[in-house]
This record gives sequence, C-alpha cells and structure tokens, in this order.
Amino acid sequence: MPVKKVNLNDKFNQFRDYWNPKIVGELNDQLVKVAKFKDEFVMHRHENEDEMFLVIEGTLLMELDNETLEIHPGEFVIIPRKTNHKPKAIGEVKVLLFEPATTLNTGNTENEFTVKNLKNI
Amino acid sequence: MPVKKVNLNDKFNQFRDYWNPKIVGELNDQLVKVAKFKDEFVMHRHENEDEMFLVIEGTLLMELDNETLEIHPGEFVIIPRKTNHKPKAIGEVKVLLFEPATTLNTGNTENEFTVKNLKNI
Repeated sequence: MPVKKVNLNDKFNQFRDYWNPKIVGELNDQLVKVAKFKDEFVMHRHENEDEMFLVIEGTLLMELDNETLEIHPGEFVIIPRKTNHKPKAIGEVKVLLFEPATTLNTGNTENEFTVKNLKNI
Repeated sequence: MPVKKVNLNDKFNQFRDYWNPKIVGELNDQLVKVAKFKDEFVMHRHENEDEMFLVIEGTLLMELDNETLEIHPGEFVIIPRKTNHKPKAIGEVKVLLFEPATTLNTGNTENEFTVKNLKNI
C-alpha cells in the first residue's frame, strides 16, 4: 500500500449526512474517522473503548453525567470507556474521531442513530 | 479522573524544544502527543507500530524511500510499521501524533534525537 496523505477538508466534502462516521485511516487496530454532527445525539457509553473527539470546525457540547464540556476547533476530549456522554452540536460541527475498530457509534444502545457498517472514504 | 478537554495551542505554548514529543492524552493504550519540528530528523522505522502525523501548523515534508510527501495543516499521514521515514520541517511545524504507548521516537535507531521518557503536559 502506498503511503498517502489525507486532507480532512477533502474528506468532509465527500458527505453531507450527520452522525454517520466515515473511516479515513487505520493504525494499530484503531480507526480514524470523520463525522459531521448536527443537533443532538443520544446519551450512551462504550463498555470497552475510549473515544477521542477532536473538533475541526464548529462548537461541540459534550454532555456528561454532571457537567457539559464546550469544545472548540483545535480542542479535543477523550471520553473514557464506561463514561456516559451525549454529543450535541451548535450548528454544524466537524469532528475527527479516534477509536478502536470495534467501536459502535451508539455504544451500549441501539437506535435510529446506530451505524453498523461504516464506509471508508 | 474527571473528563477534561485539551486545547492544542495551550499545550504547544508550554514548550519550545524540537523533536521531543509531549504526551497530551491516552486512550486504548495509544498515546496522543504534540511536538514541534524544525529542520530535519533522522530516517528510521518502527518495527511494530504505525504512526500518525496530523499537521496543526506549518509544512511537514515526510521523506519515504521513493518519494516525499508534503503535508499541510488539516492533513495527516499514517506511516505503517516497517516503513522508513524521515520528517523534515519547513520552518517550525506543529504536529499531533497518534501512536502506541510503546513507540520510541527514533524507532529502530538510537541517537541524539532519542527521547525515552516523554513528559506529560
């Protein structure tokens, strides 16, 4: 496989749907994903996976059990496994996600947001 | 441990040395690091670890055996294990690194650039 660079804006321009992460890289059994968020997701937790959200554009609110973090471009948050969290977007938010290949987007819940087969873009 | 957000600029403002990655996050046995690069590093490879370089500021040249990639802010490259690579900076470059906790910065070589005990900042 040739080594290729990835341009995040190119990747974000390839899709318009929300809460549907796309795979843009893989390393050490971890996936690098991009996603667009709008409005709010569902509260959920991942039993075995820590999850990192790096904000590229927009403002992400991350609701936890006892507080809400406000995450701006150039900022990230790592949500440890077994931690309830609910992402909410102010407007449209573009994020870069790092998480194990086994991570289901809705964690311990399954609902209309659940995406089981992520696309590579 | 409370969940905290991390601001990349705050982290970059905490150090001035080059080629000395600092740990800013950990998840799933992977480390998130920030580093400043200037001039050029040494050609090396990691036998067991893939390594991701996301450019935050400046232009990074990544020399491979047969080509050189030019990586700008908002772009990343994943260097697969066993792949020779030599990062070179045009001016000062700020990067976010994502790699396993076991990764030594100089890979299969040890020299004046080698840093064995990374600081958490």
